[in-house]
Amino acid sequence: MESDIRVLVWGLGAMGSGMARMIQEKDGVQLVGAVDINPAKVGRDAGEVVGLHESVGVTVACDGREALAQCCPDLVVIATRSFVREVMDEILLAVEYGANVISIAEEMADPWAQHPKMADAIDKSARERGVTVLGTGINPGFVLDLLIVCLSGVCVDVESVVARRVNDLSPFGPTVMETQGVGTTLEQFQAGIESGSIVGHVGFPESISLIARALGLRLDRIEQTKEPIISNVARKTEHVTVEPGWVAGCRHIAVGYCNDKEIIRFEHPQQILPELEGVDTGDYITIEGTPRIDMAIKPEIPGGLGTTALAVNMIPLVHAATAGLRTMVDFPVPRALRKESDGVARAQDV
Amino acid sequence: MESDIRVLVWGLGAMGSGMARMIQEKDGVQLVGAVDINPAKVGRDAGEVVGLHESVGVTVACDGREALAQCCPDLVVIATRSFVREVMDEILLAVEYGANVISIAEEMADPWAQHPKMADAIDKSARERGVTVLGTGINPGFVLDLLIVCLSGVCVDVESVVARRVNDLSPFGPTVMETQGVGTTLEQFQAGIESGSIVGHVGFPESISLIARALGLRLDRIEQTKEPIISNVARKTEHVTVEPGWVAGCRHIAVGYCNDKEIIRFEHPQQILPELEGVDTGDYITIEGTPRIDMAIKPEIPGGLGTTALAVNMIPLVHAATAGLRTMVDFPVPRALRKESDGVARAQDV
Repeated sequence: MESDIRVLVWGLGAMGSGMARMIQEKDGVQLVGAVDINPAKVGRDAGEVVGLHESVGVTVACDGREALAQCCPDLVVIATRSFVREVMDEILLAVEYGANVISIAEEMADPWAQHPKMADAIDKSARERGVTVLGTGINPGFVLDLLIVCLSGVCVDVESVVARRVNDLSPFGPTVMETQGVGTTLEQFQAGIESGSIVGHVGFPESISLIARALGLRLDRIEQTKEPIISNVARKTEHVTVEPGWVAGCRHIAVGYCNDKEIIRFEHPQQILPELEGVDTGDYITIEGTPRIDMAIKPEIPGGLGTTALAVNMIPLVHAATAGLRTMVDFPVPRALRKESDGVARAQDV
Repeated sequence: MESDIRVLVWGLGAMGSGMARMIQEKDGVQLVGAVDINPAKVGRDAGEVVGLHESVGVTVACDGREALAQCCPDLVVIATRSFVREVMDEILLAVEYGANVISIAEEMADPWAQHPKMADAIDKSARERGVTVLGTGINPGFVLDLLIVCLSGVCVDVESVVARRVNDLSPFGPTVMETQGVGTTLEQFQAGIESGSIVGHVGFPESISLIARALGLRLDRIEQTKEPIISNVARKTEHVTVEPGWVAGCRHIAVGYCNDKEIIRFEHPQQILPELEGVDTGDYITIEGTPRIDMAIKPEIPGGLGTTALAVNMIPLVHAATAGLRTMVDFPVPRALRKESDGVARAQDV
């Protein structure tokens, strides 16, 4: 049997904490380090911080470089921020220490989409150090890109793709309500879009770029629109109240064109309590082609669990990959890691 | 730009003919050879034989060795028979001539499942010659294995999998009617199961083995049952008539156990005209786990088109792979190849 892959988790928010808990349960991976800037977490045992009932013998560090030097991980999972420019230094530092990297920054799903120079720099560093860097997550990274690419494999021809991710923001807190405009008036929503405080979904250019890369498409342009979802009924969660006529969320739409023909259309209406107006949440993919493919996952794959799972499940594949910056379409399909001690006999080698 | 991958198609039945037509339409692949044993096809231009409106400059050969020696393909797609022992010689011959191989023989989706010695022999030959061998197809090869593995990637935990492929056999001819028992009485059906003339689906052990391999499960045993689908109404196609009380098809079920716990359940009811009794055709996957995933593709991915597409779409990935016998879970996700001349601008390199 091979020895466990030694993993450092950088960022112990909801995502990173879930990853740390999951790593503790799985065969073949071992938590050896944890980094967070929150003073309330630094210096404590990571098991306690992430909500495990036992200590794991890993103390949360506040400084990434010190933690890397001390625990020498094979791989670092970075769960801190969304944008390439925000996580670039963390990635390059991990690479400098010879660690593979998995990032859940949305833009890292395909950093060439909007930041080709930074992507090339990461790729170059990773190749020089002989390590692999991957961005993943539920979306971008799976629902609106990898899954579509995978389904296209059964098509003799693909004419166009229409996909919708319809989700419920109710579980989320004030930050998400603000960035999606939940609970605003129409005027406040429009002002928020203009000022950039309402951002909608982060990841459309990356998902479209991944599909174009895999299918060999060259798109002319991507157009994005963000529309208010006006509620006809009263909606209320722990963190926000929406009166009838107010905004329950943001319908973010992205369209990729090729010679002025619509090739890829994504719709991602994010709102609280869509079922109050009879809207079923779900992930919906239609490929117009030969054959036509109509797929639905109902309800939608939960974003938090899905992102946590993908980041951890990809660890062995990233650890085994050739050096460089990679994307999900370069890898064998993701797959669930087996549990360490579930009482079920398991294969010794896969 | 790289030069085209030179492909020989071995077997010009419905599947092989569709592949030859598809190859003619796609960038990066070129039909350089065709083999079939049917005297009505041998010696004619392959374009004419497969239903293209133009000749393609490839004459259908009857002898595989001669065709391989003459056209020196980079890759051979074998679309002749279903079982490893039937296609083994063809595969080894192609390997001997230094060609990569894609087979749509159902058992080749995971030949280790039932024929580990033959699989090892193919693997050894492929490694020695530095070529890659892959078995693929819609099922096994995609719906009940690769797609399930892919979806499991978003799961923190997988407890069990239940999947159903519900299809309509109406388009198929007399051979399929006989092997699925369509149009038999209950007594004839039972006799056909006992004699082996009614076979049901070929591929459950392979699909289950692929999932177990990818997810690191060790299964104790696989149990298969084949039940008659008794029709309550009259059903009729061009090739068969089913009276009420007769058999409209075969409900083939396979269950994989681990310590006597049901881990994988597949149901594949194959019949003519299921909609006459209100049955929706489709591909349905449920993963019981964290999170639970419920996926439906309605109607089901058509088997013929899907198998044709997968075999051709995998060509560049197989051509680029490291040597040896491989399965679909070892490869990057399949993806649709771009058309050669669809008037849409395409990326020069992917």
